[in-house]
Amino acid sequence: MATTSREVRLKSRPVGIPEAAHFEVASVQVPDPGAGEVLVRNAWMSVDPYMRGRMYDRPSYVPPFQIGAALQGGAVGQVVTSNDPKFQPGDWVESMNGWREAYVAAGPALNKLPVAEAGVTPQAFLGVLGMPGMTAYTSFHRIGEPKAGDVVFVSGAAGAVGSAVCQIAKLRGCTVVASAGSDEKLGWLKAVGVDAGVNYKKGNLLENVRAAAPKGIDIYFDNVGGEHLEVALEVARPFARFIECGMISVYNDTSPAPGPRNMPYIVGKRIKMQGFIVSDFMDMREHFYAEMGAWARNGQIKWEETVENGVENAPKAFLGLFSGGNTGKMLVKLG
Amino acid sequence: MATTSREVRLKSRPVGIPEAAHFEVASVQVPDPGAGEVLVRNAWMSVDPYMRGRMYDRPSYVPPFQIGAALQGGAVGQVVTSNDPKFQPGDWVESMNGWREAYVAAGPALNKLPVAEAGVTPQAFLGVLGMPGMTAYTSFHRIGEPKAGDVVFVSGAAGAVGSAVCQIAKLRGCTVVASAGSDEKLGWLKAVGVDAGVNYKKGNLLENVRAAAPKGIDIYFDNVGGEHLEVALEVARPFARFIECGMISVYNDTSPAPGPRNMPYIVGKRIKMQGFIVSDFMDMREHFYAEMGAWARNGQIKWEETVENGVENAPKAFLGLFSGGNTGKMLVKLG
Repeated sequence: MATTSREVRLKSRPVGIPEAAHFEVASVQVPDPGAGEVLVRNAWMSVDPYMRGRMYDRPSYVPPFQIGAALQGGAVGQVVTSNDPKFQPGDWVESMNGWREAYVAAGPALNKLPVAEAGVTPQAFLGVLGMPGMTAYTSFHRIGEPKAGDVVFVSGAAGAVGSAVCQIAKLRGCTVVASAGSDEKLGWLKAVGVDAGVNYKKGNLLENVRAAAPKGIDIYFDNVGGEHLEVALEVARPFARFIECGMISVYNDTSPAPGPRNMPYIVGKRIKMQGFIVSDFMDMREHFYAEMGAWARNGQIKWEETVENGVENAPKAFLGLFSGGNTGKMLVKLG
Repeated sequence: MATTSREVRLKSRPVGIPEAAHFEVASVQVPDPGAGEVLVRNAWMSVDPYMRGRMYDRPSYVPPFQIGAALQGGAVGQVVTSNDPKFQPGDWVESMNGWREAYVAAGPALNKLPVAEAGVTPQAFLGVLGMPGMTAYTSFHRIGEPKAGDVVFVSGAAGAVGSAVCQIAKLRGCTVVASAGSDEKLGWLKAVGVDAGVNYKKGNLLENVRAAAPKGIDIYFDNVGGEHLEVALEVARPFARFIECGMISVYNDTSPAPGPRNMPYIVGKRIKMQGFIVSDFMDMREHFYAEMGAWARNGQIKWEETVENGVENAPKAFLGLFSGGNTGKMLVKLG
């Protein structure tokens, strides 16, 4: 008794900004689970900026998506039937089998989620307690080396990662300056404790950041690259740490944009600029779950969600990441 | 009985490439030393790329040179007369009172040099056992975190700092690829152990570095910035360390040049790029003197000198740094 599942496939590789036409929806029959396998129905899936990189056919830290095959990404769902004694129907599980409604997987490929114990929603495991939250928590501590009193500048601050960084920085006693693309987003960030906000779509970015951080910055959390990175170099204090999480502003460039014109500041100001991928900091996983889990449960960390409904709208959700369509975590509800 | 000393002054601030006309030579009368003071006659002075930065009138980690005043920089000389019991006539001392033939200073401002014990020439304390050697030694270990087998790419490799880095890297079991501006310089670097050389004035830099380091690089020691930095990002392996010592290629730019077009590699390849100033690593000073001193005495580290004679030729020596006029340490003999 096979299960029908709709899935989103990459139809062609985008050049420049991705469009709906680069994706297609197909229906497939998911077979019954074999020995040791589990049938899962996804409830939520994640769309993330890094997925743009997997749409290029080039060597990278994750292999490229294949044309005509379902895309992949984080998803949470519930077990329907299980041939693995470790999983029972109704269990919440996390996998990289997003962009589809249902799937069969071997038990060890699934990560059982303690939804009830955590006191949060299942989809929080795709956000504040998932990859974005862990990205924020691990790199902010490991690369940022924050001290109370540090001034922290966060770009893409209203996103899932950026908004977590802002709040973790406040919990560590830092002053936080957030950049986002609308006054509404900045309003939410101020409501959760950010000290100053800069709307990067209004006026001169450098002047606005200088006004918000008149003494300069000690930590820059970079989600966007481009002009923000140049501005951060300009206002950096000596020994500033630059956490290079992403450069969404250039992901869709068809020819490579020049880098910052003020690179020599890296020498003169003794700046440390370091890239990472969340999996580099797996050794901090237990610390992350313990501390971030408590903050989430206690309301010390807050989060927003922007939700599209139905797997057929997953491309729309993904495209929205590049036009600033989300406040907080961008999700697709599949259940 | 005052002493006559010629000194070089900054006549006007260079815009773009400095020229002889930006400097002037003047004669001054150095007074007899007062209580606790020492009269020193310089034997050697250093010219270094960082001095270009002090010719701009801007805030930096060292104050700008003043128009009409003698320039400053590393120098070694011998005590003539001393009113400080710690110094005897004939003692070798180091100071920041370069660009002049003689001077009077308070005893505590002088650093006595163990020339005889070190078994090297006095001017080695301006090179391999001085600021350039310490710059190379400290940052290579502290930022580069070298492991045997690492591939190390060094730009400006024939200079005082670069050539020390190349040889320290070989002593640590690394493979070394050196970039310099002439086949003669590369010939010397190969004679002291470098594995492969790239003449950046010939052909395509990226192709030549790829050919010299087909498996990529783990450490980049950056003296020049600009195109070399972009090439290093291109060939970097995951987790590469970029030691940002200087960016001489852009020091004379009148409008800021764009940075590397491939900055997103910092994220994807998890690169650490870190600037420094040698004084940041003063805690390694004893380690440096002990290990580098032994290497220098035993002939495990070799060095070259390019020498101009007479204080009136100090500007010429300085200008030569920007046209690749030196192999090894650029010095001016004053004695």
